[in-house]
Amino acid sequence: MTYFDEKLENIKILPKEDYPQKGSRPSKIREDLPKLIKELGIKDGDSLSFHHHLRNGDKVLVQVMKAVQGAGIKNITLVASSIFPSMGPIVELIEDGTITNIVTSYVSGPVGEAVSKGKLQGRIIMQSHGGRARAILSDEVPIDFAFIASPSCDVKGNISGVNGTNSCGAMGYAISDAVKGKTTIAVTDFLASYPNFPADITEDYIDYVLKVNTIGEKSGIVSGTTMITKDPVGLKIAQDTLSAMIATGLVKDGLSFQTGAGGISLAVADYLRDYMIENEIKGSFASGGITGYLVEMLEEGLFETLFDVQCFDLKAVDSLGYNKNHLRMSGSQYGNPEVSCVVDNLDIVILGATEIDTDFNVNVTTGAHGMLMGGSGGHQDTAFGSKVSIIVSKLFSSRIPFIKDRVDVITTPGNTVDILVTERGISINPLRKDLLEKFAEAKIDVIDIHDLKKYAEDVMGVPEKIEKTDKIVGVSQSRTGDILDYIYEVKH
Amino acid sequence: MTYFDEKLENIKILPKEDYPQKGSRPSKIREDLPKLIKELGIKDGDSLSFHHHLRNGDKVLVQVMKAVQGAGIKNITLVASSIFPSMGPIVELIEDGTITNIVTSYVSGPVGEAVSKGKLQGRIIMQSHGGRARAILSDEVPIDFAFIASPSCDVKGNISGVNGTNSCGAMGYAISDAVKGKTTIAVTDFLASYPNFPADITEDYIDYVLKVNTIGEKSGIVSGTTMITKDPVGLKIAQDTLSAMIATGLVKDGLSFQTGAGGISLAVADYLRDYMIENEIKGSFASGGITGYLVEMLEEGLFETLFDVQCFDLKAVDSLGYNKNHLRMSGSQYGNPEVSCVVDNLDIVILGATEIDTDFNVNVTTGAHGMLMGGSGGHQDTAFGSKVSIIVSKLFSSRIPFIKDRVDVITTPGNTVDILVTERGISINPLRKDLLEKFAEAKIDVIDIHDLKKYAEDVMGVPEKIEKTDKIVGVSQSRTGDILDYIYEVKH
Repeated sequence: MTYFDEKLENIKILPKEDYPQKGSRPSKIREDLPKLIKELGIKDGDSLSFHHHLRNGDKVLVQVMKAVQGAGIKNITLVASSIFPSMGPIVELIEDGTITNIVTSYVSGPVGEAVSKGKLQGRIIMQSHGGRARAILSDEVPIDFAFIASPSCDVKGNISGVNGTNSCGAMGYAISDAVKGKTTIAVTDFLASYPNFPADITEDYIDYVLKVNTIGEKSGIVSGTTMITKDPVGLKIAQDTLSAMIATGLVKDGLSFQTGAGGISLAVADYLRDYMIENEIKGSFASGGITGYLVEMLEEGLFETLFDVQCFDLKAVDSLGYNKNHLRMSGSQYGNPEVSCVVDNLDIVILGATEIDTDFNVNVTTGAHGMLMGGSGGHQDTAFGSKVSIIVSKLFSSRIPFIKDRVDVITTPGNTVDILVTERGISINPLRKDLLEKFAEAKIDVIDIHDLKKYAEDVMGVPEKIEKTDKIVGVSQSRTGDILDYIYEVKH
Repeated sequence: MTYFDEKLENIKILPKEDYPQKGSRPSKIREDLPKLIKELGIKDGDSLSFHHHLRNGDKVLVQVMKAVQGAGIKNITLVASSIFPSMGPIVELIEDGTITNIVTSYVSGPVGEAVSKGKLQGRIIMQSHGGRARAILSDEVPIDFAFIASPSCDVKGNISGVNGTNSCGAMGYAISDAVKGKTTIAVTDFLASYPNFPADITEDYIDYVLKVNTIGEKSGIVSGTTMITKDPVGLKIAQDTLSAMIATGLVKDGLSFQTGAGGISLAVADYLRDYMIENEIKGSFASGGITGYLVEMLEEGLFETLFDVQCFDLKAVDSLGYNKNHLRMSGSQYGNPEVSCVVDNLDIVILGATEIDTDFNVNVTTGAHGMLMGGSGGHQDTAFGSKVSIIVSKLFSSRIPFIKDRVDVITTPGNTVDILVTERGISINPLRKDLLEKFAEAKIDVIDIHDLKKYAEDVMGVPEKIEKTDKIVGVSQSRTGDILDYIYEVKH
């Protein structure tokens, strides 16, 4: 500790001439992206980070990376919290060696295909959202330059996700980048007056403010299905899921709950809502990516609070502006396994799956033919943290079989997956003897997952093995940093 | 970066048996302070930190340090953001070697006297508020255990300053401690239901939650004068200060302003308020420690926002609960010289002084007979960051002379102090030729500080030299980490 270990007499008093001079600080504002790339001194091999709160509407990642390519910089590690189909133009940068490694929590569209086809010279590390926060905060994944898409920002770098033309709401995944980025650049199309508030990220974390014409389209935040399913099979699964939830004994005052934005998941939320109203149950919190459905449940008093790490629709974005109990959380607060985090307080999480195996391992990373088309996001984190994790899925929904002996890629370890609800029955992880007992008490039929698999194969036939080469293109990483699985190149 | 530098084939996939097991996390709640001290394994030589948001009403620091003494632990470095008269009981711990070093931004009462009398075996480092945040965040001052007085906290460690029996409002100075403390303990007398919100510090930063009978008395937050002076001399100074402010040209739309809670400072705010209303001026922000007077100005629309690092009275505490534009800030965001901070955006700051010298150096660290009785707080930070810093003081207010050739201890370097307003005239730092010109234009008389000093000496006589020994008891540190001055033992 400075000044304790040494003889004070030996430490010179700062002479008057050396006092730091009062005066105005240099401006952080920049308006020319290529010039800024030069000024920053980005060099071959650096890591650049981006967040995905504008989701498929984001135009910052492609804009910046194209400028990096234009500057002739190679061998970049792209640390993007998620990669969406709209970011397809960076495939060219993968092919020409501008980008050689990728760290992300989700990848779909052309970039996933390109990586699966072995086009990345380096590799892809697939992390959970909580694992990403852990990796960045612990310096496992250093960030040289964090480019932070900012719906609004003032000249000093106070960033707010709720102000501006392209408000995205919560900015939870950008927090670790702002804290740990060696150089941080707020990229905005909306220069707000000082001080911009409420700030998701404050000026003390921001080095530059880059004004661009557009950071994207907020309408692109709503991607994929965000409507309650109308399909009767999906509705049956949702109804059975509610029964399963009730059987766990957790649906009572103080319930904490998370669900995604898929059609069946939202139907579960809808049935739960009716049940909570009917039975006068008041929950504690709902968490994760937040939809308008959860906002309505908050406003009806069914939950005391929402913990929002990212907004899944524009109603959620608006709600952050006026609901005091709609709380923001960082990715670390959400799911970092090295700290106490919100997922540890979850009673029930409803999750999807592309595949599940008889060990209850779930794959949401690769899809048909083993192609990268997703990733953990919060899957691993919530499955681990929750008291009960429930996978909801149709047994027959696509050409690929749903239950296997071994999933193509383990995204979420089976020992954290508790219940599977399909249209052909409910399976319970045999590790959860407590749940098996509770379901017996509740007189809910349970089917062994092997029998469910056999039933599916009797109908669909035994799945063909996905054809892959020997080349490892990346890994599925556990939230604590271990390797859960290799990801192999697909045959093409 | 993990998994990039090695051949992936060589990295073993985590076997199923080694998957982290799902299950409940250990409780953070503790109810027995002496037991907790043992459990934490605090050892000789460790550093323990505390914040001072309950000010003279705090009972956490003494409670914890007495328990440390009870455990026979010696040689503690006490990293307390401020030390108030009510913390006098720790003098005994200084005398018996429980505490051997102190890092703080303010010390008054018995502890200041004890240190000045040479009772500390080690030394005291006097920092500014911003300098403290810098020192902690940069690991210059490591914190082994951060004890965080928490007006309310839930079982997971979400701390809110606005809930609870002893709500203190903003908790800006505790943030760096929570972020950097190797082990962090929320100490609370109000266990809130999960999730406690709005959280000033979230659960991901907290390791233990200690329930105690009392963390103190919120009434103790209001210490010293927090009323507008009624003294005509003080009111004249305040009136002249407003004239000086107007002469700078900064009192216009967008004004940013900071002032303390002293009687003259509050009178300045009051005159400013009338002037702003009369001239329809809308300011940008007021910052620092926040009083009810500033809350009223906010509510009247005279400022768009308040940046609150600590609440100086209970009206400010309440306001945080309902005024959306009453913003919290951390000590780093307030004044950390290594980042972009709020003080850098300040137009005008009004500050007090115990002494000033003809180089405009200010002492607010030591008082009569050179005894420690204060400290920089935000003095250094705001003087440096603001466009214009104004010292307001009576020339004759105590037995000690106000203007000297050299202050006893340099708290704030003279090159950052711009204007001195006394009842006998206004002096301007000759470095600020721009201000001299503006005051000439505004036809405001200015008196050379040497003449002001001579005038005072003609009335009061030349001050006696303060008698000190050769022993250095500590240093006044600049916000950037240099030594501005030694602090010597007083003769006693």
